[in-house]
Amino acid sequence: MPPVISARTLAQSLSAHMGETISLQGWVHHTRHLSAVDFLLLRDRSGVCQIVVELPEQRSLLATLPHESVVTVTGNVVANRQAPGGVEVHAPVIAPMVVPASDPPFELYRPALDVHLPTRLDHAAVSLRHPQAIAAQRLTAAAMRGFRETLDSYGFTEIQTPKLLETAPEGGANVFRVDYFGRDAFLAQSPQLYKQIMVGALERVYEVAPAFRAEPHDTSRHVSQYLSLDAELGFIADHQDVMAVLRDVIAGMIAAMHMVDAPGVVLPEVPAVIPQIHFRDALVLVGAPEDESDLAPEHERALGEWALQEHGSAWCFVTGYPMKKRPFYTHPQPSDPTWSNSFDLLCMGLEITTGGQRLHRYEDYLAAITAREMDPAPFAGYLEAFRTGMPPHGGFAIGLERMIKQIVGASNVREVMLFPRDMHRLAP
Amino acid sequence: MPPVISARTLAQSLSAHMGETISLQGWVHHTRHLSAVDFLLLRDRSGVCQIVVELPEQRSLLATLPHESVVTVTGNVVANRQAPGGVEVHAPVIAPMVVPASDPPFELYRPALDVHLPTRLDHAAVSLRHPQAIAAQRLTAAAMRGFRETLDSYGFTEIQTPKLLETAPEGGANVFRVDYFGRDAFLAQSPQLYKQIMVGALERVYEVAPAFRAEPHDTSRHVSQYLSLDAELGFIADHQDVMAVLRDVIAGMIAAMHMVDAPGVVLPEVPAVIPQIHFRDALVLVGAPEDESDLAPEHERALGEWALQEHGSAWCFVTGYPMKKRPFYTHPQPSDPTWSNSFDLLCMGLEITTGGQRLHRYEDYLAAITAREMDPAPFAGYLEAFRTGMPPHGGFAIGLERMIKQIVGASNVREVMLFPRDMHRLAP
Repeated sequence: MPPVISARTLAQSLSAHMGETISLQGWVHHTRHLSAVDFLLLRDRSGVCQIVVELPEQRSLLATLPHESVVTVTGNVVANRQAPGGVEVHAPVIAPMVVPASDPPFELYRPALDVHLPTRLDHAAVSLRHPQAIAAQRLTAAAMRGFRETLDSYGFTEIQTPKLLETAPEGGANVFRVDYFGRDAFLAQSPQLYKQIMVGALERVYEVAPAFRAEPHDTSRHVSQYLSLDAELGFIADHQDVMAVLRDVIAGMIAAMHMVDAPGVVLPEVPAVIPQIHFRDALVLVGAPEDESDLAPEHERALGEWALQEHGSAWCFVTGYPMKKRPFYTHPQPSDPTWSNSFDLLCMGLEITTGGQRLHRYEDYLAAITAREMDPAPFAGYLEAFRTGMPPHGGFAIGLERMIKQIVGASNVREVMLFPRDMHRLAP
Repeated sequence: MPPVISARTLAQSLSAHMGETISLQGWVHHTRHLSAVDFLLLRDRSGVCQIVVELPEQRSLLATLPHESVVTVTGNVVANRQAPGGVEVHAPVIAPMVVPASDPPFELYRPALDVHLPTRLDHAAVSLRHPQAIAAQRLTAAAMRGFRETLDSYGFTEIQTPKLLETAPEGGANVFRVDYFGRDAFLAQSPQLYKQIMVGALERVYEVAPAFRAEPHDTSRHVSQYLSLDAELGFIADHQDVMAVLRDVIAGMIAAMHMVDAPGVVLPEVPAVIPQIHFRDALVLVGAPEDESDLAPEHERALGEWALQEHGSAWCFVTGYPMKKRPFYTHPQPSDPTWSNSFDLLCMGLEITTGGQRLHRYEDYLAAITAREMDPAPFAGYLEAFRTGMPPHGGFAIGLERMIKQIVGASNVREVMLFPRDMHRLAP
């Protein structure tokens, strides 16, 4: 139990104190002034509760408090079927702790924030107090917890890898350059090479950390810093083993999110087996030319429709992406090396996860690096893992903000992020 | 239960399969060749087990396998009081999966790695497979889990904040500069300002994330990227409430670390109340001049001795650091504003955590920024949180690698990190 503020009752716990005198602390979320009585809606970390203010001097005091004033309220807990949660506080004594000079720039008590996205982001310190933003953040936190708890129970170990790199290994495009004590360093776009190295030590690893991409596209799903939920595991047969783990991880994340009070959010069920389609067949299904090497956003949406119509699933795997579009460490499909043992996971028609089986033999890495005319020198510390004996392995990376965006039905990842970064935005 | 590799038994689970034929997968950790029999020590993610090889063709095969070969071994589980764990595998059939060209550069089977630190770090892909390195990483993972679980149970919400900043707010020293689409950005040294903003929305927040410091000091405890375990909470009386939460968090971390098999590591107990000493008194105790404004490493060590001798505690708080040495958001000590409502937590004589109460009134921030002759403009998005009503609050940041270093008795933080970064090291 929390060691501090023992005398404080939370808004959501009022019903456990019926008939008692309690003390609340929180923010003035809203006030409604009627002729004979005022209502104060008090917000704390647990939610919002209603306080009925009748005494003239308390009503006068309340009239001086702008929205978001910080107050202590002492009063009596009374049942009232009309009040939110069936309970309210009567005969309050309001003690202001911090009184802002004026109302905030938006009406945080409205069911939805009626403010354009750039304004909302400019005033993040205020807009993030809106209950919808709070719910999105709680869902994000629950998703991280579900990710970790599922993998912990499967024998994975959490790792934290370097974000400052000597070279920009995976192609070098869209990488941020850092002045590192007078020489160049680069921000990691993913923990890929490090999580693979760690399979040699711990077999099953995961990381929850920021990833950085100097993304020149101004879209609703690309930002410069995103939260990457990475996992990698050894001793697999092929990518299907990785997909089976990912299915359980997604189910664990959704289960954790069910514990969050997020009005209006319908969490998509995760089927015991997520439907899958090979890239080659996906092109036919969406009517794309057979020489396409990737799926366009409209193709992903069409596959989302297919999964929903044919399988009743919000989720679907696309497997076998062409080798030529996948990174050098990708394991080819043994039956036809045009294709790869890789996959994407779509959530309601948007790619939220990429993964696959990786090469694991040292000589296969040397051949892949040579075939792509890459310089092997910067990979020395990585290749040493394979020269020292690495099992067949694979993994995945979940882009968490994209998943939350899909689940809450936002139109832009920025709506569910705390302080997004993009080409045009580096503050607050 | 794990969905994959159901036919596989882990080294540490052998005793549950006494008398059965099982299949193991892992690395050749070591082999011992006697005249009549060979011993194969197999390592997997659960630990090491012993396999007795008697058949001539299996012995010939084993002789061709370098250390760290990846193998499947099928055999019979037999009790043997002399074997590690009281159990071993007989009549094995060894199937090599991946055979390295040669032995690795170090002898990973030795109880301790007898290799100089720079060589160890250069060959991290190998040295991190040593059981001591694995134990350090498992302790680190357990510490993170204990941190999160304790704070989750206290009503905190996990957040993830930006690492790319428009300005270098906290003084600007030792900050890495990033080329951000042609303009300057800076890597975050801490989530301080963001976690405070989020107190306005969620009241109690925490973050586990990398922090970056362009640290020009070449010491055993400074690196360029470290893991910062941050927490911040609202509605406190003062810094003593924060210290009470921190005490429970540290206890939760140590409790989680007790679940890790880490031979030779003695986890320090956390007393119900961690002893504390005011900075002013600490100077007297260690015999430092009374006008010193910070504690030198030898002073911290002396305070560690004091806590152990006088209170039997590996932990001690130093409170009240001089305001002039603390950041602008620091709350002064009400009885004497020379001092602050701040603290450091020492673990066996090394500072591993800094924290305190923060200012919470808008006008106090304006005054503090003016008094320090700072430009308020870059803080606009931060100050908006205080202009909108913020409760009294405070928090702390744990430097996790320092804590793990102290606990395992390492002489350098780099010994317990995966891929450390410093002035001279940016790879692997």
